[in-house]
Amino acid sequence: MNQPGQSGRTELKRLPYKASFELSDLYSIIDENLVAHVGLVENGQPLVIPMTYGRDDDTLFLHGSSGSRLMRLLADNPSVCVSITELNALKVARSNFNSGMHYRSAVIFGKARLLEDDEKLAALDLISDSLIPGRVAEARPMTKKEAAATIIVAVKLDEASVKISVNEVDDPEEDMNLGYWAGTVPLKRGVGEVIPADAESQSLPIPESIKRFIERHQAER
Amino acid sequence: MNQPGQSGRTELKRLPYKASFELSDLYSIIDENLVAHVGLVENGQPLVIPMTYGRDDDTLFLHGSSGSRLMRLLADNPSVCVSITELNALKVARSNFNSGMHYRSAVIFGKARLLEDDEKLAALDLISDSLIPGRVAEARPMTKKEAAATIIVAVKLDEASVKISVNEVDDPEEDMNLGYWAGTVPLKRGVGEVIPADAESQSLPIPESIKRFIERHQAER
Repeated sequence: MNQPGQSGRTELKRLPYKASFELSDLYSIIDENLVAHVGLVENGQPLVIPMTYGRDDDTLFLHGSSGSRLMRLLADNPSVCVSITELNALKVARSNFNSGMHYRSAVIFGKARLLEDDEKLAALDLISDSLIPGRVAEARPMTKKEAAATIIVAVKLDEASVKISVNEVDDPEEDMNLGYWAGTVPLKRGVGEVIPADAESQSLPIPESIKRFIERHQAER
Repeated sequence: MNQPGQSGRTELKRLPYKASFELSDLYSIIDENLVAHVGLVENGQPLVIPMTYGRDDDTLFLHGSSGSRLMRLLADNPSVCVSITELNALKVARSNFNSGMHYRSAVIFGKARLLEDDEKLAALDLISDSLIPGRVAEARPMTKKEAAATIIVAVKLDEASVKISVNEVDDPEEDMNLGYWAGTVPLKRGVGEVIPADAESQSLPIPESIKRFIERHQAER
C-alpha cells in the first residue's frame, strides 16, 4: 500500500506501517469493515473472492457468493488467506516515492471449516448481526430451506498479520523549500439517505438496527 | 457478497448480480477504486496482499508493499488473481436471506510480469497518476535509487469476471404485509478536509491534482 522506503538514513522513520500484535487491533479492523477478500488455491492457481463476514470471539465466519464452487474448492484445499483493508487517507509527500496511504490491514491465515446444521444456522444469524447489529431480531426468521441453500465457513483467528499506517508525511530535508506541496487527504466513508423499498416499508418506521448502522457509519472517519 | 437465492420461482429475479462482459465496466471498476487485493500462491497456500495500482489500456500495474518477498513469490509462480470490490449499498430485505449488497466486483486472472528499467519508471509514474491524475508533474521527480527500491508488476487484463449488483429489494409475496421493513442503505465514500503537512505546504496553494482528486471523490455515490 505504500512505498518500501528502505533507503538509508531515515529507514526507520519511513517504514510505511507499524505491525501490530494486539488482538484488539485485529478485531477492530474486522468489526469496523464490511468486506473481506478471501484467497483460495484452485488447481495451483490463486482465486480471490469478496465475501461478507461476521466474527464471534476468535472465529471469523465467511459467507460466500458462489456456494458450490467454494465448497468444492475448500474440500480440496481448506487453506484460506483472508485480507481486510481499510483505507483512511492519502499521504501525499513531496515525492511520489515517499507518498502512500494511511490504512489498516489484516491478513489472516487459516483453514476454512464448512459449517452444518445448528452451527450453520447460528453463524448465519451471527453474520447478519455482525453487519447490522440487531438485524436478526427485526427480520423475518430464516427458513430451513434458505439455510440449506447457503454456505458458511469458519476460520479460526490464530494467525494474522496486522499493519497500521498512520505515518504523517516526513519528507527528507533535501526535498524541503523547493516549492513542492505535501499533505494528507482523508478518505471518508459514510451512509446516504435510506430508501424504503415499497409502500409497506414507507409506512413503517426505519428499524432500530438500521438507525444504529447509519449512526455508527456516519460518524466514521 | 450476497445470498445465492437459487430457490425456485423467483430464481432469475433473485440472482444477486449480473455478470458483465463489457470492457468499459471492467475499466470503470478499476479506475474508480483505490486498492486491489492480489492473490498469490506461496508453497501451495494462498496469500492475499492489498496493493495500489494503475491501469494503462489493457494492462494493470501493481505496486506492492513487500518488495523482495513478492518478487520471490512471483518468480516461483507468476499466476495472480486480482480482486477489486466497490461496495455501494446495503440491500436490506424483509429476510436476511434475501438481503445483500449493491456492489461492483472485478476478479482478474493473469500472469504477473516483473518490470525493469524504463518500463518500470514509466509504470511508477503511471500508478501515481492513476491514483491522483496529474500528480507526477507536480511532485519532485523520482530518483534512480528510489525506482530501484520499488517493485512493479504488470498484469494483462485478458481474463476477468465482472459482477454488478444493483438489484432492488424484491421480497416474495409471502413476506409482504407482515410488518417487516425493507430498504436500501447507500454506502458513500468521500474526502475530508485536506491537511497540509507543514508550514511550507501551508504557504502554498493546494495543487491542482489534489483539488481534482477531491472534486472527483466528493462527487461519488
